Formats: sequence, C-alpha cells, structure tokens
Amino acid sequence: MQAELICIGNELLTGLVENTNAGYISRILWSKGIPVREQHVVPDSIPEIAAAIGEALACSEAVICCGGLGPTDDDLTREAVAALLERPLIVDRQWLQRLEQYFESRGYPMPPANRKQALLIEGSRLLPNPRGTAPGAIIPAGKRWIILLPGPPQELRPLFEQEVVPFFRSAGFRASWQTRLIRTAGCGESLLEEKIKGAGLPEGVFFSPLAGGGEVLLQLKTAAAPAAEALLERALRRLREQLGEYIYGEGEATLAGTVAALLGSRGLTLALAESCTGGLLADLITDIPGSSLFFKGALVTYTDEAKEKLLGIAPDLLNSKGAVSEEVALAMARGARRVLSASVGGAITGIAGPDSDSSGTPPGLVYTAVSGPSGERCRRTFFPGTRRAIKERAAQTLLIALWRMIHSGD
Amino acid sequence: MQAELICIGNELLTGLVENTNAGYISRILWSKGIPVREQHVVPDSIPEIAAAIGEALACSEAVICCGGLGPTDDDLTREAVAALLERPLIVDRQWLQRLEQYFESRGYPMPPANRKQALLIEGSRLLPNPRGTAPGAIIPAGKRWIILLPGPPQELRPLFEQEVVPFFRSAGFRASWQTRLIRTAGCGESLLEEKIKGAGLPEGVFFSPLAGGGEVLLQLKTAAAPAAEALLERALRRLREQLGEYIYGEGEATLAGTVAALLGSRGLTLALAESCTGGLLADLITDIPGSSLFFKGALVTYTDEAKEKLLGIAPDLLNSKGAVSEEVALAMARGARRVLSASVGGAITGIAGPDSDSSGTPPGLVYTAVSGPSGERCRRTFFPGTRRAIKERAAQTLLIALWRMIHSGD
Repeated sequence: MQAELICIGNELLTGLVENTNAGYISRILWSKGIPVREQHVVPDSIPEIAAAIGEALACSEAVICCGGLGPTDDDLTREAVAALLERPLIVDRQWLQRLEQYFESRGYPMPPANRKQALLIEGSRLLPNPRGTAPGAIIPAGKRWIILLPGPPQELRPLFEQEVVPFFRSAGFRASWQTRLIRTAGCGESLLEEKIKGAGLPEGVFFSPLAGGGEVLLQLKTAAAPAAEALLERALRRLREQLGEYIYGEGEATLAGTVAALLGSRGLTLALAESCTGGLLADLITDIPGSSLFFKGALVTYTDEAKEKLLGIAPDLLNSKGAVSEEVALAMARGARRVLSASVGGAITGIAGPDSDSSGTPPGLVYTAVSGPSGERCRRTFFPGTRRAIKERAAQTLLIALWRMIHSGD
Repeated sequence: MQAELICIGNELLTGLVENTNAGYISRILWSKGIPVREQHVVPDSIPEIAAAIGEALACSEAVICCGGLGPTDDDLTREAVAALLERPLIVDRQWLQRLEQYFESRGYPMPPANRKQALLIEGSRLLPNPRGTAPGAIIPAGKRWIILLPGPPQELRPLFEQEVVPFFRSAGFRASWQTRLIRTAGCGESLLEEKIKGAGLPEGVFFSPLAGGGEVLLQLKTAAAPAAEALLERALRRLREQLGEYIYGEGEATLAGTVAALLGSRGLTLALAESCTGGLLADLITDIPGSSLFFKGALVTYTDEAKEKLLGIAPDLLNSKGAVSEEVALAMARGARRVLSASVGGAITGIAGPDSDSSGTPPGLVYTAVSGPSGERCRRTFFPGTRRAIKERAAQTLLIALWRMIHSGD
C-alpha cells in the first residue's frame, strides 16, 4: 500500500506559514514501512481540493489531507470531499454537543460559524480532537480511504499518532519494508560508507547515508518479512562492531539528548562558556525536559571584558593569544567549570562572521574545549557557511567532544 | 501569470530532509505579486517527474523544479525534462570546462559521474551556480517556461534571487498584485482586526492577519495598477496612525533585529540573565551580524546557586519569593546590567515544563523584566504549549519589552 499527502491552505502557497506537516507525516509513515507516493499543497478552493484528492485516490490507497477544517469561509476540505464523493454532510450530534459545551464553559454561546465543524461525510468515522474544535475523519472511498486532519501541528500530531497509525494497522495495511534509523556523529559520510561496506551487511539489508549539520544519518531498510526484525538486528550488531564509536543513538534521538542522558546517569553536572555560539548550545541543552537536574548554567561572554570578569581569564592571555585561540578556549572551559561548580565544563570561541574579526581572523574558525574529571581536550575547526551554520556546527562539535569524553573517557 | 513548484527527491518523501525550498520560493514570488498555484513533491523517477512537470505546464506559465541535478544515478531532473519535451541534452562546453577546473584546483581529476552536470536541454539558458557543481537552467517550452534549480538551499537561494527573479521581470511576466507585509507585536489578532476596521483602509486595499508565536503579520494587498504603490502607502500611513505602537517593521524584519538596530542607533548596550529560556534569547540576539557591537553577554543561571553567585541575588529573596517571581526577575535584570556593565539589562525566569517545579508552580508561568536608564518594568505572563513553545514566547515577550522601552521610553 502507499499513501499520498495533500496539504490545504493559501497561507502555505504564499510561503507565510511553514509546511511542517508534510515532513512530519512522511517521517512517521516511513518508519512504519508505508511509502508516501507524492506530497501536494493546494489552495482553499473546492474544485482544486477535490481534483487533487481524486487524482491521489487513483494512485494511492490512503489520501491524507491536512488543514481546511476550521470554522471560517475559506475552510473547505469537508465540502470538497462531499462534492468529490457525491455524499451528503450530516451533523455529528455528539461533536456538536461537545462544541456547544466547549463554548459554554468559556462563558459565551457557540458562534454559528463553528456549527460546520460538526459536519461529517455520511458513513465515515469522526476522530475527536482533544486540543481544538476541528475533529479529524476517516472516510471510506470504495476500497480506499480519505483521512482528514486539522492543520495546526499541535492538533494534527496527537491525532495522527493516536488515531491514524493504529487505524492503518487495524485496517490491515501491510508495511512494504522494515527500517532502522541510526544516528552517527564525528565521522564523515564517505569514510562511514567505506566502513559499512567493509563490515558487510547481511544480504537483503540496504543502507543509505544522509549527511547534514555535521552528523550522518544511516537508514537501514529491508523488505517486510517474518525474519526482517532479526535481520535488522544482525545488521545493527555488525554496524555497532564496526562504527560503535560514532553511533550515538537511534530513531528520534538527538546528540544533546544523548549527552544529557549520559550526564544524568553518571551523576555529572555541566557548565558552559559560549562566545561565538552566543547561547545556542545552552538553548539546545535546556530544550531537554529535566535538564535542570544536571545543567548548572552558561556564561555567554561576548566581549573580552566579560571573559575576564566572569570567567577569570587573564587579560595577558587574551592580549597575547587572542580571544579565538586554544589557550583561551581551554581557560573558558576551566572557568565555567570552576565558577559554576560543575563536574564538566565546555567552551566555544570563534568567529561566526559574516566578517573577519578586528585581528583579521576569518569567519568559520572555531575552538571547542572540554574540561572534566578525565582531563582536558581542545579542537580547532574551520566551518564554511553562514553565520547561523557556523554557530550550529560549532555547538554540535562541542556536543561531540562532551559525548566522547563522558561516554568513553576519550 | 502564475507559477507552480515541483520539488524532487526521495529524501523529502521519507521526511528525512525538511523541504524549506517550497516555502522560500513561494514567499519571494508572493512578494513580487506572482501567485503560486500548487506545490508538489515527487520521487527520483523519470516518469513521475515528467508527469508532474507536464501537468503543471498545462496550468501555469512557469514551472520551477528544485533538486535532482546532482551527479549521482538518482539525480534525474534533466533527463525527465528531456523525455517530456522530446529534446536532446547537449554538453555545455563552458560549464564542462569549469567543472574540470574546479576538480583540478582541488587536486584530482573530475569523476566521470559529474560530466552529466554539464548537460543542458537544447535551446535553454544555463544559470551558473557559484556555490556548487550543479547549474540551474531556464528552458522554453512553447510559450511557457521550465526552470531548474539545484536542491541545496544555500545554492538555490542566490540563484533564485540573482537569476530567476530578474528573468521573470525581463520576460515581461506581470505581477497580479502589489503587497506589503507589516509586522506587529504586543497586540492580539482580534483587537488588531477591530482597530484596522476602525482605521478604514482605502478602497481596493485588502488586509489579512496571520497570528503566530506571539506576533501578528498583516498582509496588505491591492491589484497591480499604476496607482497601486501610492494606494498602499496611503493604507500604511493609516495603519501607522492607528497601530503605530504595535508595528515594529516590514517585510523580512525580525523583532530581534529591530531591537538590535535600536540599541545600536542609540548607543546602548545590552546584557541578559536567562533562567527558563536557557540562552535562547542570547542566541537570537547573536544571530544578528554585528551584535558584538552592543551585546555584552548573558548569564544563563539555571540554578538558585548560579543566580546568587553570578547575579548577586540575595538567598533570602530567593527563599521568600521563589526563583519564579517579580522580585527575582527584576533583581536578575539589575544584576545582569551591573555585572556586565551594560546600559540595559533584561531577564527571564519561569517554568518551561513539562512538569511543575518543586514548589508546585505550573509550567507556562513566566516573569520578564527590563532595567534601563528610563526605569524598570516587569511582566507576569502565562503561556500554553510545549516546553519549546513556552521558551519561545518568553523570549519574544522580553524582546517586546526591550523594544518598547528603547523605542518609546515606555
């Protein structure tokens, strides 16, 4: 079986709203072994929505539509499906009641416009939306299915995971493949490919690498079959033997989350000193729920004066070596560790650009340093790209250094 | 005229790579008055790419294709267009030479696979790519056009702005509308709508509000006509009279950029103390080139201990009022200002969730404080949503407070 996505909304065609739903749904379906044939974005117009759904139904067993279920005049997905299937829209009494109660509990009567959010194509199943007034729907169309979901991601995501994924399973949609997503850091794409070819994966397991932002994602894939799971496990064991030092996680894992879990499990605390990354790494670390248990804080020292005053770096060192140097990076890591009484200190200093600094140091030059119970490390790197890209690569490089030091004592 | 977008690549259909090209191109075309009819994502397959381009050509004067121009076997966009138009691919000698020189300068011969990147559909114009080996192309198809662009955003964006936008102008494509994008902060969507209706925009000028992340974007639009520019200017003047205090910029302006420009022009410096936002605001500020001229740094104090030691907050105050309180927020703003010798200090303290803190304070409660030459302000707010959403809204609320204080002395 395969699926097709149709996202509905003029705001997507003007580019004023980012379409994050298409990528999100595709990613989940891919992990469940269901291929997405194509993705489309169409305007708020009954003929265009109906035409897109009709064409998709001709090719794909499931057509997933996102958006156009709100109460306003330009929310037209329900009406377009009714026109396409030539089936009436009938009121779902239960949802109508729930809508009325919802508005009543807020102290005012339901606006008449919201009434249409209780309309359902005859013969279909309503998917109750716990976070909004627009319910989803699963609509049979011959032997195929049209699935409607509300557009706002915070409403769409729980409905998709809690209702649509189980529906696919219960309706007997068979996965075309089984997959694993392996996350690596610290090794380039071509070297990684060579090592994997050297490892010799079991027959029938295919891999494709995907490089981005200093990490390489490895997709492992094998045809759906009773032995698929065991086959993937065998492949994974081989990869771990060959690439163990570069693999930091699987699936939705992140490097920051992996470092956080390691710090937590070893009872270590972390403090950061950031110059050119300006707080980005502290922001990534504090995105992790529970980070207050191990994260002491960060000193974003954007001037020499701040480096001296907050981190205790000697003015002589700054003058003789420059703020972007191995010596200052190490002193910053030590300073953060000491000032915030943490077991591990990390530091980043460099030139994010777009211009060179006053001493002529070119943008992209970055030093990352770690100071912890097992010693100190500093790395000099040079990143190409925009200011933002340099900040991101620099933060990621320090995460790799932290991961290595905590994980393997390296 | 209208345009249609086709993004090509299996990595988009598996959701492993975010499709940022469709939104980017749509946004630019919208600002130039060119409507995008639909967006599509199709796999690396000659028949599917060719079918999508063929269908789009039947509806739209320009079909813009992104991706599939690399050197590997699954880069098939050139071949698909040749098959669709039944026109041969011929070698562009100049680009071939450039490719050979490119590899030679790196010290190794051009891999044979790269040769196909010099292939061009007969009768079309090559768009030289300054950042990569894949050139773009403008291909006439009857009275319509197929435009090929490389997939990586850092290669696509300069080519689109420097080659494709001028091509649309020179080829005589007429804009359907003229637009202005007005950015506001600090006023809710419905109150803003009421105020605009009260202002009474000139006849023929339409507005639509778009709320997101605590800001409201206002699209102003009028039919393309000789008087359109003057009409939009008149509308803008009315809006400024009515909403002046909420409008912080136009077009691609950001609130952080606006605050940065204001600080710079008034010769003020900024220091931050962040608790629940964990460095996010410092990260936003330091994304702005030249921010080192006015940004002194930030203290990301994630523990009471750090608040005491780095910001000089009295332990008694933390004990009696709690870290999430007006008193502590103000003391943090003062502390950052003093410790980093800045003219303005800003602070954020709150509960980002997902759980309540040890004292039972629920996630979403945030205090933002500003301390500057014109006085002090503190605001208590409560944000719904995820940990990340709460961090973003909190950072944005402090930016609004900084903007107001610096802009109007409020």
